[in-house]
Amino acid sequence: MTTVIKNGTIVTADMTYEGDVKIAHGKIVEIGRHLEGEEVLDATGCYVMPGGIDPHTHLEMPFMGTYSSDDFESGTRAALAGGTTMVVDFCLPSPNQSLLEALAMWDNKTGKASCDFSFHMAVTWWGEQVWKEMAEVVDRGITSFKHFMAYKGALMVDDDEMFSSFQRCAELGALPLVHAENGDVVAQMTQKLLDAGNNGPEAHAYSRPPEVEGEATNRAIMIADMAGVPLYVVHTSCEQAHEAIRRARAKGMRVYGEPLIQHLVLDETEYFNTDWDYAARRVMSPPFRNKQHQDSLWAGLQSGSLQVVATDHCAFTTQQKRFGVDNFAKIPNGTGGLEDRLPVLWTKGVNTGRLTMNEFVAVTSTNIAKILNLYPRKGAIVLGADADIVVWDPKRSKTIKADSQQSVIDYNVFEGIEVTGLPRFVLSRGKVSIVENEVRTEVGHGKFVAREPRNPV
Amino acid sequence: MTTVIKNGTIVTADMTYEGDVKIAHGKIVEIGRHLEGEEVLDATGCYVMPGGIDPHTHLEMPFMGTYSSDDFESGTRAALAGGTTMVVDFCLPSPNQSLLEALAMWDNKTGKASCDFSFHMAVTWWGEQVWKEMAEVVDRGITSFKHFMAYKGALMVDDDEMFSSFQRCAELGALPLVHAENGDVVAQMTQKLLDAGNNGPEAHAYSRPPEVEGEATNRAIMIADMAGVPLYVVHTSCEQAHEAIRRARAKGMRVYGEPLIQHLVLDETEYFNTDWDYAARRVMSPPFRNKQHQDSLWAGLQSGSLQVVATDHCAFTTQQKRFGVDNFAKIPNGTGGLEDRLPVLWTKGVNTGRLTMNEFVAVTSTNIAKILNLYPRKGAIVLGADADIVVWDPKRSKTIKADSQQSVIDYNVFEGIEVTGLPRFVLSRGKVSIVENEVRTEVGHGKFVAREPRNPV
Amino acid sequence: MTTVIKNGTIVTADMTYEGDVKIAHGKIVEIGRHLEGEEVLDATGCYVMPGGIDPHTHLEMPFMGTYSSDDFESGTRAALAGGTTMVVDFCLPSPNQSLLEALAMWDNKTGKASCDFSFHMAVTWWGEQVWKEMAEVVDRGITSFKHFMAYKGALMVDDDEMFSSFQRCAELGALPLVHAENGDVVAQMTQKLLDAGNNGPEAHAYSRPPEVEGEATNRAIMIADMAGVPLYVVHTSCEQAHEAIRRARAKGMRVYGEPLIQHLVLDETEYFNTDWDYAARRVMSPPFRNKQHQDSLWAGLQSGSLQVVATDHCAFTTQQKRFGVDNFAKIPNGTGGLEDRLPVLWTKGVNTGRLTMNEFVAVTSTNIAKILNLYPRKGAIVLGADADIVVWDPKRSKTIKADSQQSVIDYNVFEGIEVTGLPRFVLSRGKVSIVENEVRTEVGHGKFVAREPRNPV
Amino acid sequence: MTTVIKNGTIVTADMTYEGDVKIAHGKIVEIGRHLEGEEVLDATGCYVMPGGIDPHTHLEMPFMGTYSSDDFESGTRAALAGGTTMVVDFCLPSPNQSLLEALAMWDNKTGKASCDFSFHMAVTWWGEQVWKEMAEVVDRGITSFKHFMAYKGALMVDDDEMFSSFQRCAELGALPLVHAENGDVVAQMTQKLLDAGNNGPEAHAYSRPPEVEGEATNRAIMIADMAGVPLYVVHTSCEQAHEAIRRARAKGMRVYGEPLIQHLVLDETEYFNTDWDYAARRVMSPPFRNKQHQDSLWAGLQSGSLQVVATDHCAFTTQQKRFGVDNFAKIPNGTGGLEDRLPVLWTKGVNTGRLTMNEFVAVTSTNIAKILNLYPRKGAIVLGADADIVVWDPKRSKTIKADSQQSVIDYNVFEGIEVTGLPRFVLSRGKVSIVENEVRTEVGHGKFVAREPRNPV
Ligand SMILES: [Zn+2]
Ligand SMILES: [Zn+2]
Ligand SMILES: [Zn+2]
Ligand SMILES: [Zn+2]
Ligand SMILES: [Zn+2]
Ligand SMILES: [Zn+2]
Ligand SMILES: [Zn+2]
Ligand SMILES: [Zn+2]
Repeated sequence: MTTVIKNGTIVTADMTYEGDVKIAHGKIVEIGRHLEGEEVLDATGCYVMPGGIDPHTHLEMPFMGTYSSDDFESGTRAALAGGTTMVVDFCLPSPNQSLLEALAMWDNKTGKASCDFSFHMAVTWWGEQVWKEMAEVVDRGITSFKHFMAYKGALMVDDDEMFSSFQRCAELGALPLVHAENGDVVAQMTQKLLDAGNNGPEAHAYSRPPEVEGEATNRAIMIADMAGVPLYVVHTSCEQAHEAIRRARAKGMRVYGEPLIQHLVLDETEYFNTDWDYAARRVMSPPFRNKQHQDSLWAGLQSGSLQVVATDHCAFTTQQKRFGVDNFAKIPNGTGGLEDRLPVLWTKGVNTGRLTMNEFVAVTSTNIAKILNLYPRKGAIVLGADADIVVWDPKRSKTIKADSQQSVIDYNVFEGIEVTGLPRFVLSRGKVSIVENEVRTEVGHGKFVAREPRNPV
Repeated sequence: MTTVIKNGTIVTADMTYEGDVKIAHGKIVEIGRHLEGEEVLDATGCYVMPGGIDPHTHLEMPFMGTYSSDDFESGTRAALAGGTTMVVDFCLPSPNQSLLEALAMWDNKTGKASCDFSFHMAVTWWGEQVWKEMAEVVDRGITSFKHFMAYKGALMVDDDEMFSSFQRCAELGALPLVHAENGDVVAQMTQKLLDAGNNGPEAHAYSRPPEVEGEATNRAIMIADMAGVPLYVVHTSCEQAHEAIRRARAKGMRVYGEPLIQHLVLDETEYFNTDWDYAARRVMSPPFRNKQHQDSLWAGLQSGSLQVVATDHCAFTTQQKRFGVDNFAKIPNGTGGLEDRLPVLWTKGVNTGRLTMNEFVAVTSTNIAKILNLYPRKGAIVLGADADIVVWDPKRSKTIKADSQQSVIDYNVFEGIEVTGLPRFVLSRGKVSIVENEVRTEVGHGKFVAREPRNPV
Repeated sequence: MTTVIKNGTIVTADMTYEGDVKIAHGKIVEIGRHLEGEEVLDATGCYVMPGGIDPHTHLEMPFMGTYSSDDFESGTRAALAGGTTMVVDFCLPSPNQSLLEALAMWDNKTGKASCDFSFHMAVTWWGEQVWKEMAEVVDRGITSFKHFMAYKGALMVDDDEMFSSFQRCAELGALPLVHAENGDVVAQMTQKLLDAGNNGPEAHAYSRPPEVEGEATNRAIMIADMAGVPLYVVHTSCEQAHEAIRRARAKGMRVYGEPLIQHLVLDETEYFNTDWDYAARRVMSPPFRNKQHQDSLWAGLQSGSLQVVATDHCAFTTQQKRFGVDNFAKIPNGTGGLEDRLPVLWTKGVNTGRLTMNEFVAVTSTNIAKILNLYPRKGAIVLGADADIVVWDPKRSKTIKADSQQSVIDYNVFEGIEVTGLPRFVLSRGKVSIVENEVRTEVGHGKFVAREPRNPV
Repeated sequence: MTTVIKNGTIVTADMTYEGDVKIAHGKIVEIGRHLEGEEVLDATGCYVMPGGIDPHTHLEMPFMGTYSSDDFESGTRAALAGGTTMVVDFCLPSPNQSLLEALAMWDNKTGKASCDFSFHMAVTWWGEQVWKEMAEVVDRGITSFKHFMAYKGALMVDDDEMFSSFQRCAELGALPLVHAENGDVVAQMTQKLLDAGNNGPEAHAYSRPPEVEGEATNRAIMIADMAGVPLYVVHTSCEQAHEAIRRARAKGMRVYGEPLIQHLVLDETEYFNTDWDYAARRVMSPPFRNKQHQDSLWAGLQSGSLQVVATDHCAFTTQQKRFGVDNFAKIPNGTGGLEDRLPVLWTKGVNTGRLTMNEFVAVTSTNIAKILNLYPRKGAIVLGADADIVVWDPKRSKTIKADSQQSVIDYNVFEGIEVTGLPRFVLSRGKVSIVENEVRTEVGHGKFVAREPRNPV
């Protein structure tokens, strides 16, 4: 079957032009005027853009005997509903667990995916086995390795392990990622706050201020520089971290920064809400920051010192959040956002004049595809590319509400924000998965996307 | 007639892939495998890239009763010989001269062009007439206005005039450009040096140190910010200017910087040559800088804080340079470079690992096209684009020599540099103009390219 | 007669220690324990500090046919009442007026001074006469020259004039000062705002944003660097200007910055007051800035990148402010502060822990004395120094109120601020001029203090 | 007995003036003109300055079963010979050793000292015992604690330990110091170089590039900021570390940086000497850097972002250096400098115009005394201060030669440098210890100087 998206304006990271897009067998086969196909999608008044790619999700992530509530079924459904057509999740081996064994566990979760997906592999311990298995992981198309500089006693690796792993990445042509917060300092500050009786969710933010993130970012950059490898910093939330990235880039280093949509639009005052549930639902790491940090992140997207907007989607229900009712350190870290990333960024970024439409496509899709060596299979409207497409209606608007969202959790951190700019159609490899509010996703349609190492870009 | 470029690897600013390119009526009509056409160009082992665009040339520029020696005939011939398929020249009205009258004079010179061209209009004085004519100039497709902050008593405008003009640019959706050096300080320092008997070419460099350029860049940025208009800084040569640009960009401002190929590879020691002719031939403004400044410029290209590599091609013969034999201030400012820009940048940038091939295309062509709103008509290998294409042979090499160059002047500032990476074919709107060392350019083939204001990118 | 200050703690820029201070003939003649004298001042519980020096006042300054309301009588009385024992005023020649003639006019005003004073000479135009007279001015003990980069059409000098004057300062061993705002841009923005009907006092702030100050500061620094002369930037009010100063200092340049007490504690929201009089009374240049700029200024005092806290005391009554009732550009620029500088800085700086007591002395007195080559005659508690001393009672407090101030104007921009830390005694060259709320100043006691050029520090 | 230094020019950190200095019982008892005493020292043509304080020495430091060769006898003799009248050495407990026990060992070495001395205590491990003993150490007058971020497996502490110790310093009002290099990265790079057969002294420099120092400096600053304590960074050798310090200071943090005289004047090319002994003698950590780093350090001294010049005097003979003949990692780290610091800094700093004489005093003596809370007992020429004085003859000159030095080692890294500016007399608490080339030091004259915590400055 052929599908044609007609009468829209194609918007890519570098161009805006009138054109129809013809799709067959899940691929874009023709771009031009007056195309015909069996199925016709009317894009009049709409922008036809590469579907969003979210490089940072945690679906069905194990946590204290339970799991983050959105799995590959609800998570990818939420993604598609919001115009995102691919997610990259994190495979997290336990300490001393084989990377390959962990990968097998993660693969098992993905059968329900309705959009394409890939993985980053976490390096949570170090040894000869890890060193060896990294090559096998790369062979399987997973070419990016995550390192946690925080979560002491759990996922955290020290500088010695990180430097070893970064050097291994350099050999394999893989890309290291870091969660950058100084875990030693966070752990002590957490204990001090608890000892002083500060056990509420607002203390979570006090336990990990911007300085702690800036330091770790700076350190990871140095280690990457010594290892001779590029670096991708996840969830860059503050000026201190951004400054470290800018400083490195000004020396010609290849360092990438990823603000989250949450940090761009929500600020620390959220934690001052006296409703424990309200504040606890916003607990994530890094925590929300103040307005000056938000300005810094927006400027980074404008100038190119930050390249990507993600969600770190890791959804816990209020019930799950309440694990930490007496101790903020036990509140599961994470918020949702998969469905909201594109509409909120469009509303707060494009509608306000901060970003051009082309920049919107770049930071939600194309830059990610380039950095992860998925481009132009993903992130582009070109012949031969996967037909992961969002037909964007800049006039559609809604107020974000938990009770109409795809995510299974019972709240939404963007609750009440009015967005203008929403998908009319969302296609996953040609399959029409979303038609405005109608969900037509197909469980199991999503496939793993293997990536090549030694990214030339 | 159709032409097919076969068996090459297409390299654009964002992709590298195998593909043939088919051309008809001067446009790219098909990209794919196994294409056929009447004329076949074998690109085996080569990269098929958008032709270079040089945004900064001065062909047949009037000077002290004579003209810069390369005109639109030899200049565009040199451009094509080096893989550059479009030049943007500067129309320079005399003080109190009508912009439109000046434009008519400049148009008269272009009949001999063998590649496409456009103009920047200089604002060299201010008044209601200029204010009015700027709109007419934009209507004629010239949407960028140059401002000289140096050359006191000649082209220079003061802050008041510059701010007025920048605000007018904002109204018209035009892009202001600046030559950024503090003309008052340069003029006094020049006089002091001459008074002290320092009249040789090396004193030219002393008269305009990096601080003078950095200050003016910083000032122009502030004025653009106040006027609410982007800014393009020509010939950014030093860390001080680059720092001002980075600082502005870090605040989210839209400021562009253009290093010249000369400043990237030649340094201030050139002026210490005891042969007057040797040193005088290198006299240009800004002058060559030291190695630290070069490192800064390369890092800027790598990180994206500088976007464009140009030449400021303004060729004077040794005879013309000797106007200043007793007074460096009378040495005509300018060097050549049109034929050498791409091979030298490839050799010193790509072959050394500083830049990827895609970045090479970006800074020599695509970024320029985007900034000047020529994209994707120019600067792209996409359907419908002008077939301005260079087929680049990464194995071809030569030693740069004045006696085999296209430029009419009698020396070359890159003399003796061995370059590896040269054009096999160069096409101007489909016309094969260069086949390795054979020049097939056609006088008059080049056309003026009108540009639209209100660049969305 | 001898006077002894007994039982206090001496606090200087570099030490804190117990000690009595003995004074004779206006000089400090002994420092030690258990000193005796004819007059005894009990300093129990107090800090004995060098009297404040305000390097920036405009007493009886001519303006539009009238004068700023505080003259050398009320101005120096206010100074002493607040612990300041010396002021440095500005001699402002009219365009084309002889510097010496202007100096004679200013000298005439000073007969009523009750504390010592000096002058900065303004260079408001340029010519051979100015060049010559600058030497004579230096011979008379005035070794600092002020340059206005704003106030176009009145006091402003252009870059050419400024560079000439700075070079002359270098020859004479004098110190150039700048009022740093881009006057061309301010003038146009003022006109635009007025044209758009924005004629209220809040528009004053819009007409001269921080960018305009940062640019001019950066420019003055470059010009000083080219002239080979240090630079003193008056009323540094914002991060942009401070950043330019920091950047220069980081290269080893000798650049000084002077925040005003107003900019440290008052912010731009003052202009949003709907009472025209309220807002107009706060009109000064540069205008008040936001909290981020205040943080920057405080950090500068802490780190030493800013050295001096001044007032720019230039007092106009509400009546005088109303000259600009229909046009903010006609509101006389200036606020008071002479009496309040020390108590407010102590309260907001020392009591909050931002500054040590020694740093307080440094920025209100000692640093100024050093920069202006008055040290250790002024700004020190050492043998032989002038007995310009404040005995500071850290427990005394009051609420600032216009109706109990020394200044003749009818309001106070610090109205309502509660200060803790006030003078118990203030001595001007040994003369007890203030005893808590009792004013014993003596008209005519204040003398001109000549300064030497070629400051070694 | 009374001693008078007559006819000299007194130079302190903030003043230069004519004056005689009278000394009794080791203290300054009078400053003035025409003073008389039993012993008269003629200072005609000389500057009378506070004696140098070297805050960073390692005398008789244990190392691999032997000791650094200069002990408190030869070390303090060398100090005095070069105008330095006090040294601060490091007490280095072994892992798990009691701080107090280590202190007893170090005390034992000091009986031979001929000038005053103090200690910094190193925190080389962490535990409740250390936590407790730190209070006792402070009570004994040692109020600064050193932390090694490098020397993995030996002295190094990790972030967790460092943060604990810094918080303890905050409680005690003590000052933390850091040796800032990332020990994990240095260790791995060292192993890699050795594995690759790079075992010569030049590889020492490759194993610890500036990035590694900059990172650790930045990290220590963050940890100090979180602990709410000032920070002193020893041997700041590069722009990266200096930048981190500047950035922190620009936020108002109290961070101090200490360049060594070696890093100010010697550069990395020293390691390229093909004579193994020559290069190995220069092995120290951090290693010498290039000219750009030197420029940064000098600018820091000029602007005040760096405060102190030290030596890290740790003298090993050539014989000792040869422990590492097959393995650069076994070359004992350290160079001499105690005798040379003042003459070299005067020659390269004051004679070149980079520093004023007052700044020279500040960075060699007064600033150190202030930071270590020794001021004004040390570092000042004021009544009551210890008579630690150098009478500096700016005309005396010599060429530095190992064979005429006080240090017991057989070479000098400054060999061959001609210095102009040398002591005529050096007094330790009034005792004339040096008269030009004549050494009159007295073994055992030097005493321990206790310091108070909670430094107010
Ligand atoms: Zn994370
Ligand atoms: Zn995450
Ligand atoms: Zn130019
Ligand atoms: Zn040009
Ligand atoms: Zn002013
Ligand atoms: Zn003023
Ligand atoms: Zn060390
Ligand atoms: Zn050491």
